[in-house]
Amino acid sequence: MVTVIPDSEFSDRVKRVQRELDRQDLDCLIAHSNESDPANVRYLSDYWPVFESAGVVVPRDGDPILLIGPESELYARDRSRIKKIMKLLEYRESAEPDYPGMRLSTFRDVFEEATGGRKVKRLGIAGYAIMPLPVIEGLRKVLPETEFVKADNILRRLRSLKSENEIAALRESSRTAEKAIESVLEKIKPGMTELQVVGIAQQALYENGAEYEGHALYVFSGKNTRHAISRPTHKKIRENELIQLNIGARVSGYSSSIGRPISIGRMPQNVRKLVEIGLELHQETRDLMREGIPAKEVAEKFLKSAERKGVKENVLYGPCHGIGLMEVEPPWIETTSDYVLKRNMTFQVDTFLYSSDFGLRWEDAVRVTENGVETFCNRWEMIMEI
Amino acid sequence: MVTVIPDSEFSDRVKRVQRELDRQDLDCLIAHSNESDPANVRYLSDYWPVFESAGVVVPRDGDPILLIGPESELYARDRSRIKKIMKLLEYRESAEPDYPGMRLSTFRDVFEEATGGRKVKRLGIAGYAIMPLPVIEGLRKVLPETEFVKADNILRRLRSLKSENEIAALRESSRTAEKAIESVLEKIKPGMTELQVVGIAQQALYENGAEYEGHALYVFSGKNTRHAISRPTHKKIRENELIQLNIGARVSGYSSSIGRPISIGRMPQNVRKLVEIGLELHQETRDLMREGIPAKEVAEKFLKSAERKGVKENVLYGPCHGIGLMEVEPPWIETTSDYVLKRNMTFQVDTFLYSSDFGLRWEDAVRVTENGVETFCNRWEMIMEI
Repeated sequence: MVTVIPDSEFSDRVKRVQRELDRQDLDCLIAHSNESDPANVRYLSDYWPVFESAGVVVPRDGDPILLIGPESELYARDRSRIKKIMKLLEYRESAEPDYPGMRLSTFRDVFEEATGGRKVKRLGIAGYAIMPLPVIEGLRKVLPETEFVKADNILRRLRSLKSENEIAALRESSRTAEKAIESVLEKIKPGMTELQVVGIAQQALYENGAEYEGHALYVFSGKNTRHAISRPTHKKIRENELIQLNIGARVSGYSSSIGRPISIGRMPQNVRKLVEIGLELHQETRDLMREGIPAKEVAEKFLKSAERKGVKENVLYGPCHGIGLMEVEPPWIETTSDYVLKRNMTFQVDTFLYSSDFGLRWEDAVRVTENGVETFCNRWEMIMEI
Repeated sequence: MVTVIPDSEFSDRVKRVQRELDRQDLDCLIAHSNESDPANVRYLSDYWPVFESAGVVVPRDGDPILLIGPESELYARDRSRIKKIMKLLEYRESAEPDYPGMRLSTFRDVFEEATGGRKVKRLGIAGYAIMPLPVIEGLRKVLPETEFVKADNILRRLRSLKSENEIAALRESSRTAEKAIESVLEKIKPGMTELQVVGIAQQALYENGAEYEGHALYVFSGKNTRHAISRPTHKKIRENELIQLNIGARVSGYSSSIGRPISIGRMPQNVRKLVEIGLELHQETRDLMREGIPAKEVAEKFLKSAERKGVKENVLYGPCHGIGLMEVEPPWIETTSDYVLKRNMTFQVDTFLYSSDFGLRWEDAVRVTENGVETFCNRWEMIMEI
């Protein structure tokens, strides 16, 4: 089932941004997205770029404008909920083609259109971490006296509290990933490569409603499971070794992930032991979470419990990060976190433990409720030796 | 078959960069890559980032350094051909976690290590189009007096001439994509969604040696084929409508793509006519290409031929772009191109025509030779009504 977020929810998002611009005395916001982080632009327009990048300008008053690259016009016109669309060279592919003869707008046109020529004293920038030089230089050229302000807080705060439609999309994303894990558990065999197993999962994701992978899929085995971040390889999977699955679907824009450590046949005793401790920690973290709890308290208690269990050295980060339009999005839950959990915040509880020989990750998407959390996937919550 | 590019080829690449730094009076190069454009970092180190971004610093003399984010250390150590690796907060995920307590290097450490404390007067920047603010600001802080110079030309020139190993990887990439198209042609049925067909292709790519998709796969049907750039949708495929397939595999880092317009049953007469003209143009472009020909001449003759055939209005860009570590990489072949085709340059001949109702793309990877081109895929070079 595909969740269609109505136009009214998109225009409501823009209005909330505008109220916040007013509060923070910003004249305009410019959000940036690229192929690997489409979140801010998708949140405001439902458009998500591929090959090219994209932006949205939201003036304090008036209509937002979607900014796209030279080749995406018909795609954007068919898909964007923002009806004003402008094409700029700054959003072209990283190969930097010239497109001789093509009519393109400039940032001067954009701000003329957005503000009716009013002066932009302070410009908020959302997507600061991925904002590339050509866009910043293009902006600087037409706004030489404007103060540029990192304004990620605006969209982060809005995005962190999910609407009913967003929650429906995340539930569906989880259901789609479950189908892929079912397919993997049914078909995985010793001798297959990690990448061949990725292919099984991909086929099932797209068969069952995904519009894309939720993240680059993880199928790691043996020593490769030590990697917190990695790419699957041509290594063949063997019996009795740890296999790490992290499978996520993007559905209606929303991504979550299900992470399970499994083995074909028995896990060695030392492996099984750390997997068991990981599962205990994973369940404890979920038990700690509910509306009103300070986020840092969850992180502190997680670390204390890891210490008591003798695995503090095996922790790299954690224990949670936000999910929504990205499988990893703000806010994280860390000991430095300075906020309180609210109802309808959604997180990945991401319990990763590693040693010099192997690593494992229990990972589940949850929604914060008044009394605890709703876990989107309630399956395979045990140690799987298939 | 997986092509393993030997360590010697990687160290040779670094040496060539250093010779060019010397020639251009640059003290250092810093290259940037992210999940959607891993090319420069992969070219120098074989490492490709996921979730996080990455960089490589190449000093004019001495050893290069791979720069990674906080979570990628073990992955990078297992995979990078560059043995000096430093972890910096600037390369973290776009969600910007804090990683409290983690030991990280700074750009000050990086340049101390790279240059032994010698002054960096001029710093070349490769990957300018994707260079994000946090990295630039981190550099600016420790190099306040340094001149930053866009230096994409260095890696672009090196990358544009493929070695025997790179050509082998591209041939294999094409073979893998062929397997995926075979699988699609065998299984595609009216009533499937575009995305379900993507799943069929994905499974076959990973089954046959791909380490990833070469690009976000295209399966578009009906009106969606008008989009030069787009994302496949949940639209169901019907008989007698145009279906556009663009399938690419990434193999050993190298990506190409095969593009074919097909239909299940007969195409309507007006559709078939434009598809035929597209195929003529596509073959003509390949016939124009060989070592020694100015690139712009190919583009000019393509446009003239399109005009003669009455389809100039249906052209958006073209007719070719480079391929290698990206499915779209420099150089393009445009009327503004200012270089001559050389042996072992590789291109996608990318013939896209669109109208208000539909569009079509013939696309093939080729290698420039003394007498013409080697086309990597010689199959389905006719109009397919299956």
